[in-house]
Amino acid sequence: MRITPLSELVRRAECFQQLLRENAIDGAILVQNSDLFYFTGSIQRGVLFFPAEGEPVYLVIKDFARARMESGLKNVHSLSGLRGLPDKLTELGYRVAGKVGMELDVLPVQLYQRYLNLLPGIEISDVSSLVRQVRAVKSTYEIAIMQDCAVLAEKTYEYAKTVIEAGKTDLEIAAELECYARKEGHQGVIRFRGFNSELYFGHVFSGADGAVPAYLDAPLGGLGLTPAVGQGASYKTINAGEPIIIDFIIAYDGYLVDQTRTLSIGPLNEVLQQAYADMKRVQDKLYAIARPGVAWGDIYQQCHDLAVEMGYQDNFMGSSGAQVSFIGHGIGIEVDEFPFLARGFDQQVLEKNMTFAFEPKAVFPGQGAVGIENTWRVTDDGLQRLTFANETLVEL
Amino acid sequence: MRITPLSELVRRAECFQQLLRENAIDGAILVQNSDLFYFTGSIQRGVLFFPAEGEPVYLVIKDFARARMESGLKNVHSLSGLRGLPDKLTELGYRVAGKVGMELDVLPVQLYQRYLNLLPGIEISDVSSLVRQVRAVKSTYEIAIMQDCAVLAEKTYEYAKTVIEAGKTDLEIAAELECYARKEGHQGVIRFRGFNSELYFGHVFSGADGAVPAYLDAPLGGLGLTPAVGQGASYKTINAGEPIIIDFIIAYDGYLVDQTRTLSIGPLNEVLQQAYADMKRVQDKLYAIARPGVAWGDIYQQCHDLAVEMGYQDNFMGSSGAQVSFIGHGIGIEVDEFPFLARGFDQQVLEKNMTFAFEPKAVFPGQGAVGIENTWRVTDDGLQRLTFANETLVEL
Repeated sequence: MRITPLSELVRRAECFQQLLRENAIDGAILVQNSDLFYFTGSIQRGVLFFPAEGEPVYLVIKDFARARMESGLKNVHSLSGLRGLPDKLTELGYRVAGKVGMELDVLPVQLYQRYLNLLPGIEISDVSSLVRQVRAVKSTYEIAIMQDCAVLAEKTYEYAKTVIEAGKTDLEIAAELECYARKEGHQGVIRFRGFNSELYFGHVFSGADGAVPAYLDAPLGGLGLTPAVGQGASYKTINAGEPIIIDFIIAYDGYLVDQTRTLSIGPLNEVLQQAYADMKRVQDKLYAIARPGVAWGDIYQQCHDLAVEMGYQDNFMGSSGAQVSFIGHGIGIEVDEFPFLARGFDQQVLEKNMTFAFEPKAVFPGQGAVGIENTWRVTDDGLQRLTFANETLVEL
Repeated sequence: MRITPLSELVRRAECFQQLLRENAIDGAILVQNSDLFYFTGSIQRGVLFFPAEGEPVYLVIKDFARARMESGLKNVHSLSGLRGLPDKLTELGYRVAGKVGMELDVLPVQLYQRYLNLLPGIEISDVSSLVRQVRAVKSTYEIAIMQDCAVLAEKTYEYAKTVIEAGKTDLEIAAELECYARKEGHQGVIRFRGFNSELYFGHVFSGADGAVPAYLDAPLGGLGLTPAVGQGASYKTINAGEPIIIDFIIAYDGYLVDQTRTLSIGPLNEVLQQAYADMKRVQDKLYAIARPGVAWGDIYQQCHDLAVEMGYQDNFMGSSGAQVSFIGHGIGIEVDEFPFLARGFDQQVLEKNMTFAFEPKAVFPGQGAVGIENTWRVTDDGLQRLTFANETLVEL
């Protein structure tokens, strides 16, 4: 079990506070689990207040003793309830006034209104994109955790090869991989920032099920077990000659990696084999062009254009009518972090130590999906691949 | 795989629309996954619009074909994006004006502001408690699904008895139960309404770990694998003579049941044995007093008072300093539905066919937790227990 080191917390706070000052924001109140974990090392229920300058303070409603053990922050105090927030901050010498930032991308309206009532006279402004900006660039410490995730991703994939067999269902395979990863320390909870976004480990599909589109903003969805969830593995039986997709998220010590591999029992038909090779070419394209300074949307466009050139206009990143307009997504504590390697993001550029998953996939209705996904780190002059499982189109 | 019958959707819509009219609200826009599933049978991404009177309309951004297959609603239409919402509603003959309800308990501020901009001139009011009110009272159809969940809860618990052994870790047991339940159709995703609330299947604890308090508004938390999650099973090894808690949520076909059982390898000490018997007495108290018309807070108070009378003022529903002020919570599509059997809810009363989990637990720092939890249905003259696993304090 890792406890986030103090030096990490200090560096993160400094980056965020600098952005607050650059944007003329007087302070920020952060409350969401992922952001609390990032800035305090804990998710104990409470409020993290950042003045634009000076020490942040973590006021904890429940459980204070645990927060005190988990957080390296200097100022961790107990708070009896949200009502006591203004007095507690005043008592500790903090001044909450002017423009105060909150995470308006995730904060529910009811809670927002409660803060407006609690702190009359302040102007609440949205700092969610500033938080995301800080969190997008990873430290050596964070990347080391993601490398541990990648080790488990590789082991889980190798394990998959030993349990996949014709006649088993997608669900059985999914359950066995989940169990394997859990015993190795997978934290279970996988966090999204987006409203209504949910994911359970990832996706194990065989054949046509891999081509079923879903509500999620993702190239693959799957039939799932119920319309109440509407994605993921189903009761479908695995047959020879079908593409089998293992799209699996490892969540460990608070961080995530995303990795997809394709395999089959016996050979795939030529179209699918070619599509797999072509998706790897899209990945090669990424590797050739991605480096600090390149626009997110530019990477999307060049890789997308290559896929279209190769004939996948109706199959790339979903089947016709259900295609998504991204190929990659930032990943760290959440699945949907900055950067978005997506259409239209022409102003924002890659920075050193951003980490993202890149998932070129080709979808063939009635047949299934093939593709590859790795989690990458931006280096000084290109990319480092964090996930390292064998990329061969495996025939079991 | 169940598809929600049309008659269910019609009845649910009628109940909700009647509440809209009673509260002088002209219409409602619902967007959250749980509410979409309840009112449409699907969670495909889109907007569900309810006029105060007349047919609701489900406008689907992704995936329309799938929503059309999953939803029995008469009016399901494709929507290219949120921007097109006002025109599409007008085109279909709907008038969005006046006071329009949204789910302000879960809707993020950014999205709320987007709707305000999209629909200028309307007044957005909070209908989350109306939605929760409708959803709290279950139909025969819904209760049948919850009974299926209860069957799986019982089987999973029986399976637990076969895999628990000294020397294994809590995590190993948790992973094996998760795997077992998944193969039987557990949907994985467990939904909360509350901001920042998360749960992964539930909790498997042995000994002192069961007494570690956590951020969640729950009597038990557990150490978990990382402060990034801060709850759940840990790497702790199971020993003889410790209380083992199996607090497990079954999520199946969109519905949930919550069930807790306590066991041990070899006998527990007398204090813990007595505490378990006493927690069952709290459950007996519930059974004796709960019926339609009784206030939620009244049930809480009477059961709480009994626990205090028996000497558990520092152990009931958490250890001293980390006690929670509820004993039961409504359950259905989400873990935190109405009713709240909690302190202070003196105006709201039980109604026939409400379903809730009731979880009297006693926590002893350094030793662990014992307790029991069942999911109940309110009947004409009392309660029906939906979960039915054997309640004996099992000694393995």
